[in-house]
Amino acid sequence: MSNFIVPSKQGVPFISVQAMATMIRNYGIEQCIKDLVEALEKDFSRWDSFEKSSRFASHSVDGVIELMPVSDGNMFACKYVNGHPINTTRDLQTVAAFGVLSDVDTGYPILLTEMCILTALRTAATSAMLAKYCAPNNAQTLALIGNGAQSEFQALGMKAIMEISEIRLYDTDSAASSKTAHNLANSGLGITICNTPEEAVKGADIITTCTADKKNATILRDDMVAKGIFVNAIGGDCPGKTELDKKILLRADHVIVEFEPQTRIEGDIQQLSEDFPVTEFHRILKGEVSARTAIDDLVVFDGVGFASEDFTALVFLRDLIKKQNAYELLDLIPQQTDPKNLFSILQGE
Amino acid sequence: MSNFIVPSKQGVPFISVQAMATMIRNYGIEQCIKDLVEALEKDFSRWDSFEKSSRFASHSVDGVIELMPVSDGNMFACKYVNGHPINTTRDLQTVAAFGVLSDVDTGYPILLTEMCILTALRTAATSAMLAKYCAPNNAQTLALIGNGAQSEFQALGMKAIMEISEIRLYDTDSAASSKTAHNLANSGLGITICNTPEEAVKGADIITTCTADKKNATILRDDMVAKGIFVNAIGGDCPGKTELDKKILLRADHVIVEFEPQTRIEGDIQQLSEDFPVTEFHRILKGEVSARTAIDDLVVFDGVGFASEDFTALVFLRDLIKKQNAYELLDLIPQQTDPKNLFSILQGE
Repeated sequence: MSNFIVPSKQGVPFISVQAMATMIRNYGIEQCIKDLVEALEKDFSRWDSFEKSSRFASHSVDGVIELMPVSDGNMFACKYVNGHPINTTRDLQTVAAFGVLSDVDTGYPILLTEMCILTALRTAATSAMLAKYCAPNNAQTLALIGNGAQSEFQALGMKAIMEISEIRLYDTDSAASSKTAHNLANSGLGITICNTPEEAVKGADIITTCTADKKNATILRDDMVAKGIFVNAIGGDCPGKTELDKKILLRADHVIVEFEPQTRIEGDIQQLSEDFPVTEFHRILKGEVSARTAIDDLVVFDGVGFASEDFTALVFLRDLIKKQNAYELLDLIPQQTDPKNLFSILQGE
Repeated sequence: MSNFIVPSKQGVPFISVQAMATMIRNYGIEQCIKDLVEALEKDFSRWDSFEKSSRFASHSVDGVIELMPVSDGNMFACKYVNGHPINTTRDLQTVAAFGVLSDVDTGYPILLTEMCILTALRTAATSAMLAKYCAPNNAQTLALIGNGAQSEFQALGMKAIMEISEIRLYDTDSAASSKTAHNLANSGLGITICNTPEEAVKGADIITTCTADKKNATILRDDMVAKGIFVNAIGGDCPGKTELDKKILLRADHVIVEFEPQTRIEGDIQQLSEDFPVTEFHRILKGEVSARTAIDDLVVFDGVGFASEDFTALVFLRDLIKKQNAYELLDLIPQQTDPKNLFSILQGE
């Protein structure tokens, strides 16, 4: 019961979009990503303590609805998240996410929260964490292909953790690139909007692909990817949704994944045979394997997003809201005097 | 988009415990169960239109946390529900549930709601629906073993649908039986509190077992169950949590289940071999099979609760809140002007 933020009988703490935005503004986005990287490293280093499963996915013509549960035996986390690239044509977001954190001991939810902003932060932190271990030394330039909702977070994460100073933007929707450039104008990053993906990747030390189309796309061709760089490919995260020419994966010196069984289904490696060699990131973090052994090594992160990253973010949030007091209490679970007397609520007693 | 209660940009409708209680009081509990039975029959008769899976379960020492997703291609429903019998010793409920209903087309949640009360109603409606097809003609007496949070709902459901007039209560906790008797005092039902389960089942046309202990229990021994009756066994719903002597199942003329793959894992039939014959209820509803062919037939419903029942209840609720206007709007999903500009929320623009 020690995990309760407040006694459950007072209601379930709820963090709205506005409460989240206010908290993160107060905290500072880069500081938040830095602290999330630290928390992610702690949790990835105790990988075996998590009860893991590939996420549940319900596919439809234009999108997917997913559930991402995970537990460490102490806390249980679950994120609801959709992926509907077509939504932006309807004035809706591609991704609408929310999540719950629960106490395993009682099964009671202790936190219910928006997770669009939180997911963007944790995804940026995950990418930046991977870059720490996989990117070349003194990386300065990031090519950012796909300038949607996730792009600014990726840019700031690579700045905060990798001290990236130059960003090269490309998107098939030039308005999206302009939006990203505008949002990052005061970030201290040098920004270049590029007219082609080829132009964007030229001279980049890190290439991040975070595109949304639910199809087998070739965002990066093999000839666009130089030796010695780090490819942070996070938009290919669903069956039938890939970003990389498979030649890049076949040529890579190292392909890193989060949770192999899920990435085999969802990642860019879905294009390859089941025995194509990949390394789960926790092994690199623990020092069992090196991500990069030579200056010319091409390292690819085939990121799809794993439930433990949301777990880390939700526990981070649990501690944050205690400090900032930025939540309301939701009347989600009955609080009648006798727990066996649920019926009494309907009698208005 | 036609499924939206309100445009999603205005927030997600949330139904609190108090809002639910007020609505159901206004509606009438028995009327609500009657209308839920009708809705359940409609949905079970289109069984093949649902994308089905056994629920996700995360087990711990004292309980389980479950996710119950289901989709009909138009709407997606998911319930979060725990089961921690030990909770009542902590002044908390055994079950704390909430749920979401979403629009498959956009992936957006259109409803977030408490589901403790709603689950009790849908479970009572499911049992009553089964009784329509499985109980003997002119059933008058219900033995109710297990007088916890679910018991009054079960009693009123059997009254509303089966015109049951007599209820015989038994629980190892006599205070629970007194509570149930008190709550049903003005229901029009004749109530008898029994000192033993043997006394409770004597002369009963329907026996309902809804006990909570997470163990392999023998709530009903073989010799306690007469020919010709209907056993509505709904408390054995988890691996290692059963209620019936397996001899009852082996002797039964018909064992009915909801979704066979899930019941094999969770139901009382977990005690038997994988090829023990059972019938999925939708087949009985469609007239493919008769639940009862002779007056002496013993029919058992091995109920565990299936996600489609929550789906039905959530869609029922969606329509109900439109009439009663009993919801608030939750700031759960970002609503900024440009859907690709999630970052703008953090800039306070």
